[in-house]
Amino acid sequence: MPELRKDPVVGRWVIISVERGKRPADFCQGAPAKKGGFCAFCKGNEHTTPQEIIAFRPDGSKPNTPGWTTRVVPNKFPALQIEGHLEKTGEGIYDKMNGVGAHEVIIENPDHNATLSTMPLKSVEDTLWAYHYRISDLKKDLRFKYVVVFKNEGEAAGASLEHSHSQLIALPIVPSQVTEEIINAKHYYDNKERCIFCDIIRQELSIRTRVISENKGFIAIAPYAPRAPFETWILPQKHESAFAPDGNFSMLAEILQRTMKQIDKVLDYPPYNIMLHTSAFNDEVNEHYHWHLEIMPKLTKIAGFEWGSGFYINPTPPEEAAKFMREAKI
Amino acid sequence: MPELRKDPVVGRWVIISVERGKRPADFCQGAPAKKGGFCAFCKGNEHTTPQEIIAFRPDGSKPNTPGWTTRVVPNKFPALQIEGHLEKTGEGIYDKMNGVGAHEVIIENPDHNATLSTMPLKSVEDTLWAYHYRISDLKKDLRFKYVVVFKNEGEAAGASLEHSHSQLIALPIVPSQVTEEIINAKHYYDNKERCIFCDIIRQELSIRTRVISENKGFIAIAPYAPRAPFETWILPQKHESAFAPDGNFSMLAEILQRTMKQIDKVLDYPPYNIMLHTSAFNDEVNEHYHWHLEIMPKLTKIAGFEWGSGFYINPTPPEEAAKFMREAKI
Repeated sequence: MPELRKDPVVGRWVIISVERGKRPADFCQGAPAKKGGFCAFCKGNEHTTPQEIIAFRPDGSKPNTPGWTTRVVPNKFPALQIEGHLEKTGEGIYDKMNGVGAHEVIIENPDHNATLSTMPLKSVEDTLWAYHYRISDLKKDLRFKYVVVFKNEGEAAGASLEHSHSQLIALPIVPSQVTEEIINAKHYYDNKERCIFCDIIRQELSIRTRVISENKGFIAIAPYAPRAPFETWILPQKHESAFAPDGNFSMLAEILQRTMKQIDKVLDYPPYNIMLHTSAFNDEVNEHYHWHLEIMPKLTKIAGFEWGSGFYINPTPPEEAAKFMREAKI
Repeated sequence: MPELRKDPVVGRWVIISVERGKRPADFCQGAPAKKGGFCAFCKGNEHTTPQEIIAFRPDGSKPNTPGWTTRVVPNKFPALQIEGHLEKTGEGIYDKMNGVGAHEVIIENPDHNATLSTMPLKSVEDTLWAYHYRISDLKKDLRFKYVVVFKNEGEAAGASLEHSHSQLIALPIVPSQVTEEIINAKHYYDNKERCIFCDIIRQELSIRTRVISENKGFIAIAPYAPRAPFETWILPQKHESAFAPDGNFSMLAEILQRTMKQIDKVLDYPPYNIMLHTSAFNDEVNEHYHWHLEIMPKLTKIAGFEWGSGFYINPTPPEEAAKFMREAKI
């Protein structure tokens, strides 16, 4: 059983995932992403993944057979274990609990070589629906307080498989970083009676130097203080606290795919991470938090300065990044 | 002039370092560490670095000539600029100031191929003295509130030059991550009248499963909730709030070099980061914070889950890492 442990000083939880345990020698070689060869996420190999949880099957085909367009399966090497009780325990000054949680994979499209920027727009939209369905379902499990939805594309961004996929991890605690972001937004709201993200959108729309694109539902911006070059946020233009009550997935898919085409064009298909930031289960409808996607191309390295300070050094002003993105011929 | 900008939601500051500006195409190739060839940090090439700030010159040789054993120079490509005023400004809801600060390089030893684990112990000790002298000097500049001292070893850990060196960045604000750590320690102290780090040391010494080594002044432990495999902390055994009032550098050098030998032995010379955590200038002598070194071998990748949650997944329990380290034949 994996374990959740809390650092007593900074309050950060970590997952000690012994099931994925490695001997020291395993780290010495590095672990390159598997290229070519067999891929469990490809059409025809459905029997090699754990049993599917949901799938979009426009042709009415049977579960765990070809015919799907987007497919959700449990992670074969989960960081947390779905069965069991939390058994919260103290160890002197330390706190821990069992590593109970869900770890799922969203296979966005059956084509091994498709990416978010090249797959049919319908697959991007269905992927967003899959996020929504899975979050809605996991929310019913009272052990879980938050679902982290994320995507790693490219080996340098932590992807261990080439075939385009997203992941989600349902957690028995709200991560402290999420709590902090929500608390800060709440302070702002308490002070001003306005959502800070709504204020950001208003200011960005009036200045426009950091606006990358927009459609009727969403806006893509380079944030004012980006941690890394070409960091990009996509936010709903109207206030929405949690992903995504209005389910406006066609417009979100459109701006997400457009953004990824711009990033791929400007940066020549960089590795990247995408993270969904949303309200916690216990306070999903509120006026202070505003869900959004954060896209981080992996162009710089996290080094000692960032580890030691939480400060980031970014060589590319967001105004410049936004301009390159806007002018990309996609 | 670089700029310091604050994210209005999470309060994180970033350095927008346009002087290091890159065009998008510069990111596409990656930038491998320069191997072989000319090295500005090697003996005989002193004239190719900016003028030295201090150096240990046991033979009484002249500044910026050979004969030094440890040498501190300004970073040739500084993230912050030493001259200028802060000019703190608001931009609507955003906050910024000029990127004023110091960015220095500590060249630990003249030998291009020496590392912390292989260089003479005296060089490790002198490097620690250099940290101390530079912090003490920078503290006098009232624009600065904190100095981040760190070391990147190996390309994957963010080192852009092979020759072993440390860096320091003096900042006009205390990084929020540092503030948070200090505030949490203060809460603990207010509650218990004890330093949380002193309590950690006591508990670790009574259990011993996570103790890696100790000498009369210091202890090396695998922390209870490590972010990454083989994360190691070195702490003074007696309470000391800031680096390092007692100046017990020979014992610190001894345990630091021993720890790096163990890491290099067990993990076959991995890339790594070392970070000094210490009290802020405005509250250097206190009973709640306890300075220490954090060593992070770079064995796993920061991916979307970590970015999105601040949670870390660690495949190696610290008890196991500590055992491997203790048993390493160095």
